Amino acid sequence: MSDERWPTAITDVSAGSIKLRGYPIEELMGRVSFSDAIHLAFAGELPSPAASAGLTAVLVASVDHSGGSPSALTARTVASAGAPIGTAAAAGLLAISRFHGAVIEDCMHAFARVGGLRAAGEDLDGAAARVVAGRRAEGGRIGGFGHRMHDVDPRPERLFAICREHGLDMHGNDEVARALEHALGAATGRPVPLNLDGAIAVVFAAIGYPPEIANPLFTIGRFVGLNAQAWEETTRMRPMRAIHPRAYDYDGPGERHLDGAA
Amino acid sequence: MSDERWPTAITDVSAGSIKLRGYPIEELMGRVSFSDAIHLAFAGELPSPAASAGLTAVLVASVDHSGGSPSALTARTVASAGAPIGTAAAAGLLAISRFHGAVIEDCMHAFARVGGLRAAGEDLDGAAARVVAGRRAEGGRIGGFGHRMHDVDPRPERLFAICREHGLDMHGNDEVARALEHALGAATGRPVPLNLDGAIAVVFAAIGYPPEIANPLFTIGRFVGLNAQAWEETTRMRPMRAIHPRAYDYDGPGERHLDGAA
Amino acid sequence: MSDERWPTAITDVSAGSIKLRGYPIEELMGRVSFSDAIHLAFAGELPSPAASAGLTAVLVASVDHSGGSPSALTARTVASAGAPIGTAAAAGLLAISRFHGAVIEDCMHAFARVGGLRAAGEDLDGAAARVVAGRRAEGGRIGGFGHRMHDVDPRPERLFAICREHGLDMHGNDEVARALEHALGAATGRPVPLNLDGAIAVVFAAIGYPPEIANPLFTIGRFVGLNAQAWEETTRMRPMRAIHPRAYDYDGPGERHLDGAA
Amino acid sequence: MSDERWPTAITDVSAGSIKLRGYPIEELMGRVSFSDAIHLAFAGELPSPAASAGLTAVLVASVDHSGGSPSALTARTVASAGAPIGTAAAAGLLAISRFHGAVIEDCMHAFARVGGLRAAGEDLDGAAARVVAGRRAEGGRIGGFGHRMHDVDPRPERLFAICREHGLDMHGNDEVARALEHALGAATGRPVPLNLDGAIAVVFAAIGYPPEIANPLFTIGRFVGLNAQAWEETTRMRPMRAIHPRAYDYDGPGERHLDGAA
Repeated sequence: MSDERWPTAITDVSAGSIKLRGYPIEELMGRVSFSDAIHLAFAGELPSPAASAGLTAVLVASVDHSGGSPSALTARTVASAGAPIGTAAAAGLLAISRFHGAVIEDCMHAFARVGGLRAAGEDLDGAAARVVAGRRAEGGRIGGFGHRMHDVDPRPERLFAICREHGLDMHGNDEVARALEHALGAATGRPVPLNLDGAIAVVFAAIGYPPEIANPLFTIGRFVGLNAQAWEETTRMRPMRAIHPRAYDYDGPGERHLDGAA
Repeated sequence: MSDERWPTAITDVSAGSIKLRGYPIEELMGRVSFSDAIHLAFAGELPSPAASAGLTAVLVASVDHSGGSPSALTARTVASAGAPIGTAAAAGLLAISRFHGAVIEDCMHAFARVGGLRAAGEDLDGAAARVVAGRRAEGGRIGGFGHRMHDVDPRPERLFAICREHGLDMHGNDEVARALEHALGAATGRPVPLNLDGAIAVVFAAIGYPPEIANPLFTIGRFVGLNAQAWEETTRMRPMRAIHPRAYDYDGPGERHLDGAA
Repeated sequence: MSDERWPTAITDVSAGSIKLRGYPIEELMGRVSFSDAIHLAFAGELPSPAASAGLTAVLVASVDHSGGSPSALTARTVASAGAPIGTAAAAGLLAISRFHGAVIEDCMHAFARVGGLRAAGEDLDGAAARVVAGRRAEGGRIGGFGHRMHDVDPRPERLFAICREHGLDMHGNDEVARALEHALGAATGRPVPLNLDGAIAVVFAAIGYPPEIANPLFTIGRFVGLNAQAWEETTRMRPMRAIHPRAYDYDGPGERHLDGAA
Repeated sequence: MSDERWPTAITDVSAGSIKLRGYPIEELMGRVSFSDAIHLAFAGELPSPAASAGLTAVLVASVDHSGGSPSALTARTVASAGAPIGTAAAAGLLAISRFHGAVIEDCMHAFARVGGLRAAGEDLDGAAARVVAGRRAEGGRIGGFGHRMHDVDPRPERLFAICREHGLDMHGNDEVARALEHALGAATGRPVPLNLDGAIAVVFAAIGYPPEIANPLFTIGRFVGLNAQAWEETTRMRPMRAIHPRAYDYDGPGERHLDGAA
């Protein structure tokens, strides 16, 4: 039996002391935002103001996308069977898999391939067309483009505007994303617009996150909605109902705005 | 077959439009914090500045508590077996159960019982002693007091200071918590200090969250750490290792402070 | 750091040797049924032939109950999002909770309460009526009675017949179950027939399983169906479809019989 | 909203009738083994006696492999935190991933590659060496060979003997497995013995299961042990203990045999 000791660089805990990446937790409390603590936990350093703005906007954008997404339906079905809210939300997370939400990483890899071709001298549109053609030849798609519901998704352009406003250098990946969008449209003969996943990929590449934490960071946002969906199911609906995946009606507050105008 | 339509008041989605509790998501992006979006998703309204400060401090305080907690060990063990980070973190959530983290709701109920006795004319110390005696007679504990590692946990007092600084009315529950702490100490003959869960119970009661969403809100904070722990396991350690639950050493940044002093 | 050693009485493994409850695994292989190994793992001894017959019939009866149960819908939804079959089936298990499947234990407790009253001199019908009235006064139900789909469920009576055929002493709990069925019908004014969960409770009490392993044993049966449902979803259906909870049509083999007659 | 109806060929349920792959469930109950019902659920037909014997032996062999496997440690950790046994066992399943248990499918693919080379005229040892070299060149392993604990695992040879005894045609894959074992030993310079996963791959290929249901079938066996481990944790150990992954001692029945000899 080997009792191998193991290292960890996240949290240092001893009696009366908890330090996250070196910072006493009671010093972070009250002085940094939740987004900043998330960045610190993963990246090991507090974010720049621009990175903080980018990550915050991504997390806010990701909180929920209605009760009809596969992960929300999973959370509701498990809650409806009588499980605690937390168990239902954890089950919902298991539905954020290959085809649902978990494509940001894939899209970041596509950006990197376009970048590699451009570094080798190809122009942007040619590189994008080549990457699209390569994926289609393999029978695959490029994550981050196309959406079942939104022909024009309001979130990607808003995300880019926030990044520009805060001076977050996107290293041209916003243009790469648009070039891939055009190349996909040309190859398929129909519009395949950049979606939220693709825009998040741009922002995460700009902040410098490694692709393999892209989806975990997205799920931190969506986990909020999964808990809220499970809780609403528990409090508003009778147990064990048949949950139709499309037949829901929104009955919450009407459209309103941050400046108070209706 | 009845195709019953069902209501939801969280998110309103239609082609080109996503509104969270009535607010267009692209308007929230860039203007509210992630904490505020979390509050909005659950409570249906944006938080007051004081509630926002309280919830943010709770979430920051909850992000992680080392690789040795049951939920972190679960996430690491599942990651070590080769599962995706998100699957490992979801498994870790399942370990935030009756004895680990999931006691905030229980503590909120204890506050309410003390409050009920006081409303009936009992004084604070007498009411606290009565609630402690009642629980012990049933063979139970009161969640939110005592900790395996921390005789004095730095987080509760800091949390209360932040609330006072922002003028969040704690409705006397900080004093109730201290009275229960004293009553537990007197009944058991050893110190049973208020822990983070108990302090969170005070803050959540102050904000007005119903007890049943207390643990979901806590897990939204801790889910960050579970992902970070699973990711560190995947990137730093060999697969399928025997993970000793105590034999870890912190090797991250040394103590540092927000003002840059070491 | 205390390195407390811990005991386990299930499996003894050393280099070149694996013994389940004392039996070399290679000796059990080829000589005992899977049901018998399940009983051995939990109960610590191989089952009597009658107990083996009872448990086997329960497991066979529990394998699946269509794609429309909450657990099957959960497994299918997670599989549809691209998760591995095993992850999808694990998510489905989380939906076997308070209201779905997890009521066998509850029913066993109701039998015990009727037994207690009878031991105190009450007759069967009076005891059953008293237990039903007590539950209704608390606002609860008795698990194991009533079914959304089956007015007459073919499985309970068949299960009892198998037990009788093999001489499994049901200690009168089949009669207790019928008395509770009648008492529930009288109290509610409509038929509330014994369902599969209730009949399993009778068999498990006869075998002598403690109530707290009743639901785990049931889920061992149902886990088969959850895997099969997830696999069928993956192989037959396109990803990310909207899964209507009732709109499925069976298109498998027509009715057939073990003796080969159609 | 399209209310697309969907097909399923597993279970046909209507009022008073439940048919698994066409057989009335009450007719299967009492007449087929649990293994046979498992085969029926997946394969759509009842197994031949030889296939039934092979699958049963695999399931019995897979029930448990001590409290120290990653999946068992996960189940115990979650149970120790106060979760229901079923939730703990479901979490344990999530640890049966790429490196732990989930390699049977991979091994079946290796057999198929050897078979392809032989069909093209290569001899057995040459084909095995080529497949081993190919995998090593890609930096990968071949699942089903090597074990942390067992230099000689008693289960593979016993599994093959049972198949031979019942006349289950292994299509030469037992010899392919042994050839791969020799090729791996030659390539690595140390013994890399066939393990249980590899032997199960032989049996499942013999029965004709598609590779993608190999791991689900294995987990149906192991799910038994995960439930038993979680239950033992709940009943024998105090909550929230630090669970050392190696420091357990078996204290169950001493070695015993099916014929009653000690």
